[in-house]
Amino acid sequence: MGNLLHRTTWLAALIALSLVTWAQQDPHSTQGGAPHIHPDGSVTFAIKAPHAQQVQLSLDTQPLTAMHSDSAGWWTVTTAALADGLYRYVYIVDSVPTLDINNVYTMRDVYITKNLLIVDREGKCPLAVHDVPHGTVSAVWYDSPTLHSQRRMMVYTPPGYEDDHARYPVLYLLHGSGGDETAWLEQGRVAQVMDNLIASGQATPMIVVMPNGNVDEVATPGSTGAGLVAPSSSHKYEMDGKFELSFADISTWVENHYRTRKVKRYRAIAGLSMGGYHALYISANQPDQFGYVGLFSTAVKRMDKGRCRIYNDLESKLKVQFQDRVRLYWIGIGEDDFLYSENVTLRDMLERNHLRHTYHESSGGHSWSNWRDYLILFAQRLFK
Amino acid sequence: MGNLLHRTTWLAALIALSLVTWAQQDPHSTQGGAPHIHPDGSVTFAIKAPHAQQVQLSLDTQPLTAMHSDSAGWWTVTTAALADGLYRYVYIVDSVPTLDINNVYTMRDVYITKNLLIVDREGKCPLAVHDVPHGTVSAVWYDSPTLHSQRRMMVYTPPGYEDDHARYPVLYLLHGSGGDETAWLEQGRVAQVMDNLIASGQATPMIVVMPNGNVDEVATPGSTGAGLVAPSSSHKYEMDGKFELSFADISTWVENHYRTRKVKRYRAIAGLSMGGYHALYISANQPDQFGYVGLFSTAVKRMDKGRCRIYNDLESKLKVQFQDRVRLYWIGIGEDDFLYSENVTLRDMLERNHLRHTYHESSGGHSWSNWRDYLILFAQRLFK
Repeated sequence: MGNLLHRTTWLAALIALSLVTWAQQDPHSTQGGAPHIHPDGSVTFAIKAPHAQQVQLSLDTQPLTAMHSDSAGWWTVTTAALADGLYRYVYIVDSVPTLDINNVYTMRDVYITKNLLIVDREGKCPLAVHDVPHGTVSAVWYDSPTLHSQRRMMVYTPPGYEDDHARYPVLYLLHGSGGDETAWLEQGRVAQVMDNLIASGQATPMIVVMPNGNVDEVATPGSTGAGLVAPSSSHKYEMDGKFELSFADISTWVENHYRTRKVKRYRAIAGLSMGGYHALYISANQPDQFGYVGLFSTAVKRMDKGRCRIYNDLESKLKVQFQDRVRLYWIGIGEDDFLYSENVTLRDMLERNHLRHTYHESSGGHSWSNWRDYLILFAQRLFK
Repeated sequence: MGNLLHRTTWLAALIALSLVTWAQQDPHSTQGGAPHIHPDGSVTFAIKAPHAQQVQLSLDTQPLTAMHSDSAGWWTVTTAALADGLYRYVYIVDSVPTLDINNVYTMRDVYITKNLLIVDREGKCPLAVHDVPHGTVSAVWYDSPTLHSQRRMMVYTPPGYEDDHARYPVLYLLHGSGGDETAWLEQGRVAQVMDNLIASGQATPMIVVMPNGNVDEVATPGSTGAGLVAPSSSHKYEMDGKFELSFADISTWVENHYRTRKVKRYRAIAGLSMGGYHALYISANQPDQFGYVGLFSTAVKRMDKGRCRIYNDLESKLKVQFQDRVRLYWIGIGEDDFLYSENVTLRDMLERNHLRHTYHESSGGHSWSNWRDYLILFAQRLFK
């Protein structure tokens, strides 16, 4: 009884910490208010907004969906069955974009935060956490003499890394314009994907290094002396060669601080959009460094003509690069991507020169949905 | 011109990714919509909600504040000058708790997510990121033979750790009931506090280990095979001795995987609320292990009587513990804390037995504001 009383006091104190009544328990949910995922993959969304005139669901790329209210002020809608995967959503309450206060899971895409849910009907979705061994994820600061700054990057080491003395291959994984060093982990679900692919034997255990490709910021917004500033999607120097020329600071630091296999055969580089552009030119200018190259929805064209030598003579550089064996040169592009034609041009150029590559054309456009898929495909072909 | 056109296409594509018009640019803000912090520490909050009848600001522990709208539907309020520090807030729009969609910075406290801002008028707030060397933060999984599971913990290593061969002292820092291994980093701002205190010479460089003290969960919600479940504040076995008895799995793993100084003189343990309870009984039952003990708003009383031997004979255990030198036994409690009397009782018992300790009584109650303050005070006295 004393124990029960004590617990009650405790709980009361916890609740008193919040002045708002958070008692928005969703009657349609088994998860304390977050969307309820039904066995067939359909999802019931619910938000309590008793005074609202109109509430809509904004679910990923689908058109806005009207929600309907009951007499208690709960607005709900149930979707058709969704395929396994990751979905982002917000509610639009009387034209105000509103995060789901009952779902603590959110995801930031540059300057937009949305709620998150994962449909995983069979327990096999590679984006979900499963009961498999997990790697370590670290936020580390390295010195970049080229950029005259301490900069942050994220590093995934595979399960077992801490307990053996083996050397591991490395994948350098680069984000897009507006993203930062956390993008691949947060939106790309890299830790979950790698844990799952390694556990099932589909991927070779590897280190994944995710630096920040915007040279005008040293780390993700909020992680620097600039304070809790709003993220920006426009960066001053994103494609003028500075990142590419500073890349050796990253690979040197990684090879000095992790047990890596320091040969081309066990080094990969990949990126999405601007990060694909970075990967393209970094690998072309260092033909002896990367045995594997992944270009996901890549910006192929030079963005800032004539400013940096590394963008010159791509075709002849690629010929040199492919002379020293490139084990996999993987291009992924969506048929609706606004960069589609640039990627077809790159593919044609490779074909014209008989440079062996893999071209993967998917549906959809310039989206994390595609980039996650590309990573899953690409990672399975590395270091084998 | 081609470059400009290309950039325009690019931006258009980015914008098209979101079906919602996010053009909520706050006219009162310099930070893209997040609250505007004025030089005197007053803060202007703003949210666009043209159809709302009533909008209020819920700012930390202050009473709800009415906001006022202009003809464009922007609701605003400006606070009095706030002291330097961290503040959490949400808006209440027609009774619906609403996160600030224009502020990407949020903080989860158990099951409640709120927005975050930091007032730092002089650039000296120890909770803010400053341009100082930064430590590494890692999420690692360790094996707990006692609990028969792989479990996650967060580890902070100080700046320089990767580049020297020195051994470092270790602080084990334990969260409260309902929290998890991320609580001290996220709400306690441990990485920022340690970076700043170490940079200014106020704290000795140390490793900080933050395990998960709830034995019925292996990691923070969303990081386990259970999926994106709602966080719970009630855990089955939180105070039955299981965590305390499994603690050696953590310290053994840490001492095997990090360059630690493996003597009592360089080992500290501290915790808040339930974590203080854990720290109290772990240290009392291993009198040769911890040279420094920090009890922040501690639950002193046994929560689950008679179930576990480690809770027996506290007074005689403390006498033994203090015979082998305890360099600092630090108790922090707020005068309004619901655990106040328990802590006074503990202090009186220590005094009665002439066991040397430091008792710090602050204003306020059972809050992160106090726990951050206590950490800052405690960390400066460690390992000196």
